[in-house]
Amino acid sequence: MINRLCVIGVGLIGGSFALALKKAGYVKHVVGAGRNAERLQAAQQQGIIDSFETDLVKAVKNADVVFVAVPIGSMEAVFRQMAPGLQDYTLITDAGSAKVSVINAAKSALGARLKHFIPGHPIAGTEKSGHEAAFDSLYQQRRVILTPLEQNPRAAIDVIRKLWQATGAEVDEMGARHHDLILAGTSHLPHVLAFSLVDCLNQVDDVDEIFRFAAGGFRDFTRIASSDPVMWRDICVYNRDAILAMMHQFENELEHLKQAIDTGNADELLAIFSRAKKARDDFCM
Amino acid sequence: MINRLCVIGVGLIGGSFALALKKAGYVKHVVGAGRNAERLQAAQQQGIIDSFETDLVKAVKNADVVFVAVPIGSMEAVFRQMAPGLQDYTLITDAGSAKVSVINAAKSALGARLKHFIPGHPIAGTEKSGHEAAFDSLYQQRRVILTPLEQNPRAAIDVIRKLWQATGAEVDEMGARHHDLILAGTSHLPHVLAFSLVDCLNQVDDVDEIFRFAAGGFRDFTRIASSDPVMWRDICVYNRDAILAMMHQFENELEHLKQAIDTGNADELLAIFSRAKKARDDFCM
Repeated sequence: MINRLCVIGVGLIGGSFALALKKAGYVKHVVGAGRNAERLQAAQQQGIIDSFETDLVKAVKNADVVFVAVPIGSMEAVFRQMAPGLQDYTLITDAGSAKVSVINAAKSALGARLKHFIPGHPIAGTEKSGHEAAFDSLYQQRRVILTPLEQNPRAAIDVIRKLWQATGAEVDEMGARHHDLILAGTSHLPHVLAFSLVDCLNQVDDVDEIFRFAAGGFRDFTRIASSDPVMWRDICVYNRDAILAMMHQFENELEHLKQAIDTGNADELLAIFSRAKKARDDFCM
Repeated sequence: MINRLCVIGVGLIGGSFALALKKAGYVKHVVGAGRNAERLQAAQQQGIIDSFETDLVKAVKNADVVFVAVPIGSMEAVFRQMAPGLQDYTLITDAGSAKVSVINAAKSALGARLKHFIPGHPIAGTEKSGHEAAFDSLYQQRRVILTPLEQNPRAAIDVIRKLWQATGAEVDEMGARHHDLILAGTSHLPHVLAFSLVDCLNQVDDVDEIFRFAAGGFRDFTRIASSDPVMWRDICVYNRDAILAMMHQFENELEHLKQAIDTGNADELLAIFSRAKKARDDFCM
């Protein structure tokens, strides 16, 4: 249970965090922060936050925990602006989809407060965004990965862990670099492929006809290409190395498959498709 | 309305075709054919077919229409085996996902009967297979593409067209080569990418962990990697040229995106993702 939570960035992720903790009775007062007072007012009317501030120094004042849920491209500026308002006891965590870059931003902007920054990433979301899309059960039975720093006191990590558990999430811990590689494989690479496929087909001559004959499988496969372009631009910029590493592995795999198609190697095609089907069926059952 | 329909290959596609026509009251008797008598018997008990034969010459005897719904790798052998049993008036159609290769098989195996072969492809299916997965509404509001031969009498094409319309499908006509390219883009390439992604991740060291942290987007994206490996091996063998052409275009697109990630070209990344999101939102609304 904490007294005062500050949520910077009251969108789907930040808003749902506040709603879940209020519903669990785990927080007394939530102050929302951001650049747009009108949208913060709407979030307050919706019951997501109890008060709001557009000045980050005022927003974080007396907060027990600050949750930063802004696009990763804005993390460093937000850390720098709020730093002067932080108390000795204030813990900070975030929701960035790539951890190494956020940790570097925190190292550069938080100074001596770094030890109270516990990096985190909830693996949850929808293709929608904004506080209007927030709901209190977004994190139920979803995974949250914390990538603690060696400077973090164990007690501080556990406060953040319990906050997430109060939202209904399951919490794991791992190193930041490892997190970034896993997410590059299971989330960033699939998004990159879906965006690429749609953009590629969109350049074919008979584009209207092509999409007219797309069936249900195509719809599922390309759903993630409806995600927020700004968020995904940021992820590609800030998780560059891990994404390039996974793209390289994928291109090797695709080249291998292309060779098998080119040479009509039916046995190899069957082997690849059977392995993939088994792996997919095993983990999605 | 037809008297006798022969379905060769009583799986999801063939079985659902029979069920839909029975439900519409559009067929009097359905004879199922295939290699496995036990499975045909089960399909009969399920009410999908009224009788069955494992001998294709007997199966097609007196049929008004023969519907061949076997993997495309088996088409030529099936055409060759059934040919001696065909009547002068019997029309033949199929469900192969690649048309040029099936037409070549028919040209080689059907001889003078070729003029009564009207090639077709229902763009429908699920990742499941077998007659157990068949259901009578599979084709409702789905598209079926006929790729008629110049030898086909218009009246024969229209019989097949009306059969499909009776299942609830919408029927289009186009050239076989054009069909193969469109399907390579909207169906074959996405399957190839989904199989490749899962197989690629499956070779990463921490494979269990990778899949453990996969979220809903990944599940949707890789659903088609659960499809039948034998069917997809055949499609890759029999629609080789069109698939290779689409893979080539896709690789160029992916290379372009990789360059943008590598050089941190945020504007270009935003442009690609925004174009893709708009195209996807426009056609899937």
